[in-house]
Amino acid sequence: MALLETIRSPEDLRRLGLPELERLSQEIRELLVQVVSRNGGHLSSNLGAVDLTLALHRTFAAPRDKIIWDIGHQCYTHKIVTGRRERIGTIRQKGGLLGFPDREESEYDVLNTGHASTSLGFASGLAIARDRQGQDFHIVAVIGDGALTGGVALEALNHIGQVKQRLIIVLNDNKMSIAPNVGGISRHLNYLASGRPYIRMKEVIQKVLKAIPLAGKPLFDLARKLEVLMRTMMVPGSLFEELGIKYIGPINGHGFPDLLKELEAAKKYDYPVLLHVVTRKGEGYEPASDDPSSYHSSAPFNIENGKFLGREKGPSYSQVFGRSVRRLVEADRRFVALTAAMPEGTGLDAVQRDFPANFFDVGIAEQYMFDFAGGLALGGFRPVLGVYSTFLQRAVDQVIHDVSLMRLPLLVGLDRAGLVGGDGPTHQGIYDIALLQAVPGIVLMAPKDENELQHMVFTASRLDRPAFIRYPKEPGRGVPLDAEPRELPLGRAEVLRRGNDVLLLAVGTLAWRALEAAEALAREDGIEAAVVNVRFLKPLDRALVLDMAAVTRKVVTIEDGTARGGFSDIVRQAFPGAGTGCEFLALAVHEESLPLASRPELLALCGLDAAGIRRQVREFIRKK
Amino acid sequence: MALLETIRSPEDLRRLGLPELERLSQEIRELLVQVVSRNGGHLSSNLGAVDLTLALHRTFAAPRDKIIWDIGHQCYTHKIVTGRRERIGTIRQKGGLLGFPDREESEYDVLNTGHASTSLGFASGLAIARDRQGQDFHIVAVIGDGALTGGVALEALNHIGQVKQRLIIVLNDNKMSIAPNVGGISRHLNYLASGRPYIRMKEVIQKVLKAIPLAGKPLFDLARKLEVLMRTMMVPGSLFEELGIKYIGPINGHGFPDLLKELEAAKKYDYPVLLHVVTRKGEGYEPASDDPSSYHSSAPFNIENGKFLGREKGPSYSQVFGRSVRRLVEADRRFVALTAAMPEGTGLDAVQRDFPANFFDVGIAEQYMFDFAGGLALGGFRPVLGVYSTFLQRAVDQVIHDVSLMRLPLLVGLDRAGLVGGDGPTHQGIYDIALLQAVPGIVLMAPKDENELQHMVFTASRLDRPAFIRYPKEPGRGVPLDAEPRELPLGRAEVLRRGNDVLLLAVGTLAWRALEAAEALAREDGIEAAVVNVRFLKPLDRALVLDMAAVTRKVVTIEDGTARGGFSDIVRQAFPGAGTGCEFLALAVHEESLPLASRPELLALCGLDAAGIRRQVREFIRKK
Repeated sequence: MALLETIRSPEDLRRLGLPELERLSQEIRELLVQVVSRNGGHLSSNLGAVDLTLALHRTFAAPRDKIIWDIGHQCYTHKIVTGRRERIGTIRQKGGLLGFPDREESEYDVLNTGHASTSLGFASGLAIARDRQGQDFHIVAVIGDGALTGGVALEALNHIGQVKQRLIIVLNDNKMSIAPNVGGISRHLNYLASGRPYIRMKEVIQKVLKAIPLAGKPLFDLARKLEVLMRTMMVPGSLFEELGIKYIGPINGHGFPDLLKELEAAKKYDYPVLLHVVTRKGEGYEPASDDPSSYHSSAPFNIENGKFLGREKGPSYSQVFGRSVRRLVEADRRFVALTAAMPEGTGLDAVQRDFPANFFDVGIAEQYMFDFAGGLALGGFRPVLGVYSTFLQRAVDQVIHDVSLMRLPLLVGLDRAGLVGGDGPTHQGIYDIALLQAVPGIVLMAPKDENELQHMVFTASRLDRPAFIRYPKEPGRGVPLDAEPRELPLGRAEVLRRGNDVLLLAVGTLAWRALEAAEALAREDGIEAAVVNVRFLKPLDRALVLDMAAVTRKVVTIEDGTARGGFSDIVRQAFPGAGTGCEFLALAVHEESLPLASRPELLALCGLDAAGIRRQVREFIRKK
Repeated sequence: MALLETIRSPEDLRRLGLPELERLSQEIRELLVQVVSRNGGHLSSNLGAVDLTLALHRTFAAPRDKIIWDIGHQCYTHKIVTGRRERIGTIRQKGGLLGFPDREESEYDVLNTGHASTSLGFASGLAIARDRQGQDFHIVAVIGDGALTGGVALEALNHIGQVKQRLIIVLNDNKMSIAPNVGGISRHLNYLASGRPYIRMKEVIQKVLKAIPLAGKPLFDLARKLEVLMRTMMVPGSLFEELGIKYIGPINGHGFPDLLKELEAAKKYDYPVLLHVVTRKGEGYEPASDDPSSYHSSAPFNIENGKFLGREKGPSYSQVFGRSVRRLVEADRRFVALTAAMPEGTGLDAVQRDFPANFFDVGIAEQYMFDFAGGLALGGFRPVLGVYSTFLQRAVDQVIHDVSLMRLPLLVGLDRAGLVGGDGPTHQGIYDIALLQAVPGIVLMAPKDENELQHMVFTASRLDRPAFIRYPKEPGRGVPLDAEPRELPLGRAEVLRRGNDVLLLAVGTLAWRALEAAEALAREDGIEAAVVNVRFLKPLDRALVLDMAAVTRKVVTIEDGTARGGFSDIVRQAFPGAGTGCEFLALAVHEESLPLASRPELLALCGLDAAGIRRQVREFIRKK
């Protein structure tokens, strides 16, 4: 890796000739495959963006020029060439580099990101601030065709086309968001990428010219004039031009000569331009280019054959969710599964595969997904949505204003709820309880294990109102799955253990951790804790909680959600004014900022693993 | 009003000839002006949509065909001709008709709406449900050019252009959202409305034809063929066609022959079509057509001269906010004011008027507004955002993922926070506290009166982190405004009254209502209540609250926000495990659904007026 070791900052890229750039590109790809095969991470998109990143950093003078990575999962090469090569092996590990841009980590990282479609808005604001202050640097937003369909990016295109600040949008078009991309914009991009508008225009011109009986020089001149005239008047129609943004493309994203030429050319415009760069996800590593979805957010794998390592024995919560929904669809075709660009991540690819007509991937468009589901529900269908907890934040108004107000019977699986490992602060799913608890008329559940998850999906499918089920990204417990799902009584908790010293009210898979803690407390500390698997956060099993609390007088709530506005508040609301003399302890995420770490590490850090629960409950009891 | 009285259902429209339609249109306009002049309401948009509504109901067979009104503020004529004429005088009044569509009210109302840009998503879902079930009815979504720029509508256009279900989008283009409309899409619509694409195409064809030396019949035929060929190959470029949606227009929205013809024609397509209908806001009532913004959401007025009645003596909270921001801008041009289509509503038109360069109206695009502001902040500016509390729901992820995570120092005025009169359930601002309390690192304030509001704006402008100020839509108290704003100590509450029997912790303008209640309690009931104006919900003045609660042992929280996840929870979190033996009472919005009523009526209903506070506090004390 001789060449790569000479790259200490982007400036070093500028002395490289084209063959060296190609070689560097190859070296970086090898490094990426190595690192991700060990640590897991976003492989396909990073492989696809190597050449583009090198070309960008060779053309623009970061950190003076601002390169903004939308989502930021494709920033590994950017990190490697901006002084973080030696630490790249630590990416996504506790204490290591974040898998997304991070302003604390480097002055080359303009934004902290992780969610899609924010780059254009920030770029637009930054451009205005720059111009108003008479500064002179380039702003480049690099956005994928997937992220481009997110509402906030489209809102931004609309405004950018009006204010017309100098600004370069690099559209990294790999035909995928995470899964293959969808929608009219995607189709339009394919059309542009194919070069069709030019071909069409040429056809018109040629037909016109052919139709004219030409002879001799004067007519030849006339024909040329005609061609110029028509070229000027018929700019090949692109969506972006209609909005007021100059379109340049398509550009081969794996050919340095073109890339460098067009990026350089883009500097000259004093209004917004969009460069349409066509790249291939997974470029340079065959298993990833053959199956870019699987390597989008990849587990560790064997480089030789691309096989993923350490797959857990039991199915994941996502898989159980997907299979449970598949079962609903199989039994009743009114059920339809919806995802915003996450068919695999949500497990709903199980429906997509077997019942494609009952599956919709709407692209990165969470707001739309909820309203679209609302329309399906009004039309008599039973929509089931899979969405990551952190992305539910994008659709809060749809939940309040549309779903709740009209009591639409949507069934929503909140995947990756609670503490999420590996991705860092942007992907934590710790706000869903706080965001949902205030919403009237909805049901909110959390299963203690994957078997209970299938029962909850079934239970929710029987309800005539909106139901949300939150579950974590962690291996399933490996418990046996009942052959038939059954209905759980609405709003009823499950007592896992009796005990008179303290009441532990646990949410989701923290229930078995609480049970473990309770057993250790009994065995080692002589403390008898009652443990309740809450099951329903809304409606809470108030009668059971009050009854049991009347005995223990000490109540501990256990959740991997924010301590503010979360389950602990739901429980305290359930108690009459004076709390009937009970003492409360809220085990939850009290931290205002969470470091990069794995889920087990984060649980331990927040005192939410069995050991942490035991320790804090013991202190709570002994303090008295 | 002879003609209007014969219209009992949309079917009755079908027997009318054109002159009668015109007459009916005139009668309805007179009725609308009368009703809104008395009740207040959305005048401009309803006047602009009369002809379109009549044409729609004459062409389509509702309720079988589904007419979906985006936002729904323009639905008055729809209500009048769908059996609610006799109750139209009760619109926006307690017990009367809602000013928005309401499924409980009529089978002609397909959706409950109030927020912008949701119609397309619902229409799309409904269309798929229809087609899958082999049903056969028309779905018509009527959306304004303003609402079209909301992210969820743009996400929907993208998906609709792909799934290609039969669906009619009527774009009611009045060049306004609430204020004049902005953005590349708006400019593109103007271009389409002007007929430019056709003119351009014609020009090309004519120039080409002129350039050809034509003589005799064969060449004439050739020229005609050429024209046809070029027409076919060069569809006038419209944004919508690029997305895969058939564009028809522009159509004069005040000419029945055209409207009826084109609506009828739209029925024939078996894929999505967009009819571009050009209307004039305020059409038919001169004060409204001259100043459509003021009559968008209008107060009662004098029909003769258009003057608004019963303007309050003191300035409104919105006005004080706008003037305070104007003052910031005047002193330091790094301050910039941002609104999402609400320059007047937020009072920020004060900045727009005097410092247009420091004002941005981004259109209906709340998500973008926050990211755009983030970019401005990164560039060294100090953005100040005015947004209605209910529309903050649209930007929750931006607040969490962008603003909070990067601690961007935005200053956000949450207008119309708490209980909102007149507009019904969709516009309540009761969720902001619950949505914001979990967000790390932000400051959340609420002023007791308009003078404190100006101090809070000033205080927030001195902070280096995100700050939110919530204030209601109610008349200012008329208190004197200090000549100079001053900085309030961060996180410090204000004691309004001392008392040892009970502690009243009040949010915002409920503070003076609490004080009134306390005085009556002392005078009539012999109860001495301490009253605290909380000022800072985040960070809470915990030391003061605990100190005072240690004396009273009884704590009452008073807020016009949801009881779940709101201020009451913030206060209980502040108490150690056992609540130090205190008894709590949460006065808040416990109701899961709120009726249409004025703000004073809603406060009374929720027990949050002075009388209600007194009554509940007295019961709380005596119960002991």
